Amino acid sequence: MFSPHAIGFVRSPYTQTNDIPKGLGARHEAEGVLEILPEFEPGLTDIDGFSHLFVLWIFDRSQGFDLFGKPPIDDRPHGVFATRSPRRPNPIGLTVVELLRREGSRLHVRGVDMLDGTPILDLKPYLSSISPDKLRRGWIAEAETRAKA
Amino acid sequence: MFSPHAIGFVRSPYTQTNDIPKGLGARHEAEGVLEILPEFEPGLTDIDGFSHLFVLWIFDRSQGFDLFGKPPIDDRPHGVFATRSPRRPNPIGLTVVELLRREGSRLHVRGVDMLDGTPILDLKPYLSSISPDKLRRGWIAEAETRAKA
Repeated sequence: MFSPHAIGFVRSPYTQTNDIPKGLGARHEAEGVLEILPEFEPGLTDIDGFSHLFVLWIFDRSQGFDLFGKPPIDDRPHGVFATRSPRRPNPIGLTVVELLRREGSRLHVRGVDMLDGTPILDLKPYLSSISPDKLRRGWIAEAETRAKA
Repeated sequence: MFSPHAIGFVRSPYTQTNDIPKGLGARHEAEGVLEILPEFEPGLTDIDGFSHLFVLWIFDRSQGFDLFGKPPIDDRPHGVFATRSPRRPNPIGLTVVELLRREGSRLHVRGVDMLDGTPILDLKPYLSSISPDKLRRGWIAEAETRAKA
């Protein structure tokens, strides 16, 4: 195993969980900044060429986990690995953001859904997509259908 | 911070790093099994409805990190956060797999690029894709262009 440590922190407009848009069709268009610690700045070399990044981060204001529970966007319980719940066995979050511009060790991005001050674990380039016609979206698609009915 | 712990292990045809297809255009079509530990099985409820999953895992056979280095698929060095190098400040890997079928706590998947026995940290549903016409792929696209020239 390893000891996780922050490579930086998220600057986000959201200071409380309730501020973050949730629910079916919630869009994450908020802009924010990924402030990478100066000692890791060399690791950002060439990142500017990518339009989208995976951000791995810590749910640092969540404690414990539930293997089975009701997400905010459905009235039925689901397994935690079929949801984006913060209450996970390893409290790691994953967000795809659009990279708008880089200023040194500050990455201006669109699409943050993290709280302000969230510790960042890793950044990776987003290289390819699964074609939407090949995607099945399980209970999320079913809940959307029920919501429209 | 938190202490990472395995929720399961990857069964993969790859036992050595050199077995894993690398390079431009490498395809990851290998089938494998995500063996989730029995105590976490309730967390898999409803996961069967999703065609694709994000798998977060540990580069457990990698030590230390390089902020700047030459990936196998290019002759030019790049920052670690612009690559999928295993030698990262937090040695976490991310792979998108196709879920073929579930047998209890065993998920049969396509697209493994991990070594056999790799510890799994988390599974998340893959919900949406960035449209390919909106993706810029930086040095990877440039290296592909050079390789074709």
